[in-house]
Amino acid sequence: AAAAAEGSSGRRDAEAELNLPPGFRFHPTDDELVVHYLCRKVAGQPQPVPIIAEVDLYKFNPWDLPERALFGSREWYFFTPRDRKYPNGSRPNRSAGTGYWKATGADKPVAPKESGGRTVGIKKALVFYSGRAPRGVKTDWIMHEYRIAEADRAPGKKGSLKVTPLDEWVLCRLYNKKNNWEKLKVEQDMAVEAGPNGEVMDALATDAMSDSFQTH
Amino acid sequence: AAAAAEGSSGRRDAEAELNLPPGFRFHPTDDELVVHYLCRKVAGQPQPVPIIAEVDLYKFNPWDLPERALFGSREWYFFTPRDRKYPNGSRPNRSAGTGYWKATGADKPVAPKESGGRTVGIKKALVFYSGRAPRGVKTDWIMHEYRIAEADRAPGKKGSLKVTPLDEWVLCRLYNKKNNWEKLKVEQDMAVEAGPNGEVMDALATDAMSDSFQTH
Repeated sequence: AAAAAEGSSGRRDAEAELNLPPGFRFHPTDDELVVHYLCRKVAGQPQPVPIIAEVDLYKFNPWDLPERALFGSREWYFFTPRDRKYPNGSRPNRSAGTGYWKATGADKPVAPKESGGRTVGIKKALVFYSGRAPRGVKTDWIMHEYRIAEADRAPGKKGSLKVTPLDEWVLCRLYNKKNNWEKLKVEQDMAVEAGPNGEVMDALATDAMSDSFQTH
Repeated sequence: AAAAAEGSSGRRDAEAELNLPPGFRFHPTDDELVVHYLCRKVAGQPQPVPIIAEVDLYKFNPWDLPERALFGSREWYFFTPRDRKYPNGSRPNRSAGTGYWKATGADKPVAPKESGGRTVGIKKALVFYSGRAPRGVKTDWIMHEYRIAEADRAPGKKGSLKVTPLDEWVLCRLYNKKNNWEKLKVEQDMAVEAGPNGEVMDALATDAMSDSFQTH
């Protein structure tokens, strides 16, 4: 599909390779990511489609990660090894590349209907800071980390989720606040509603897209 | 897919019927809508997938339209007959149901790369007002109308776009501002970033979804 190829700049585009009808793309809900992608990964089951790259995110600066994704022009998905050093993932920062990721906001429980409202995963938002803590400079790079809820990691709690070496994986969505598909779409729509600014917003959106990789 | 069925409340769900992998859904760009769906419709060519219902939008109030769409829980797509009375679509309002649609903001040209940057379509945003103009009450129901650019409707200008009875069609996206997929996703993400409000925002989002059909 034309748009699926867009933004992949010659690199492999796992989304385009699916040959979906025009206009269809990966826009998963939190529930879908946890149930169909993270849980299956952790349980050692095959992925519905092979579109999420395995990358150790903490080895790179965020702006060097998009090219390591299997697809995406505005947000990128990765499986990354779960940090062993701080199993409860609640520490203030995690060094990565030349800076560190710092948790922001409250963790959000992911409790899919299919699971009878039981909390299966936890969604955590992090912001990338350039430089050394505590003097790091906040950037516009955001990561949403999805991990299996601790309760589910207890042996025997749920067959498909029993502890195995594999369940060290977490699923991450990376994007740049200044270049966010959802955000831009809203801004554009709002702008179109708002009036003459419409064109301005569109221009702004285009800019944001073109320099997303430098922004930090 | 779980989420594709979500919100379709027992009605036919043309998106779910495509059996896409989990997390994939119809999130077309303006270019995709115009090139792959509207242009093909207008040219009498088959649609890539039969997911856009033909409905005369102006016969209904917006909150009665979602149930007439072939899929969608937060935004709905329709082909509707192009208004013959005001071919230039620039008049201030168009009566529909017990109210009228009023253009808002600037029209946005849609000029896909595939078309060498030539303007192929025009995107127009409209807001629904309840009651009689000029005393109508503004609602949260928004329509994005995509029509073929006038230039392209001149006979012979472009084979696949030459004037035929069919090119009276326009493509419309309907949604409620208070219940917008893109907007909610951003609000939720921003909220998660923002902090404790995270949970509040999620609650708010859920509410908005559940009462979307009543909102007006």
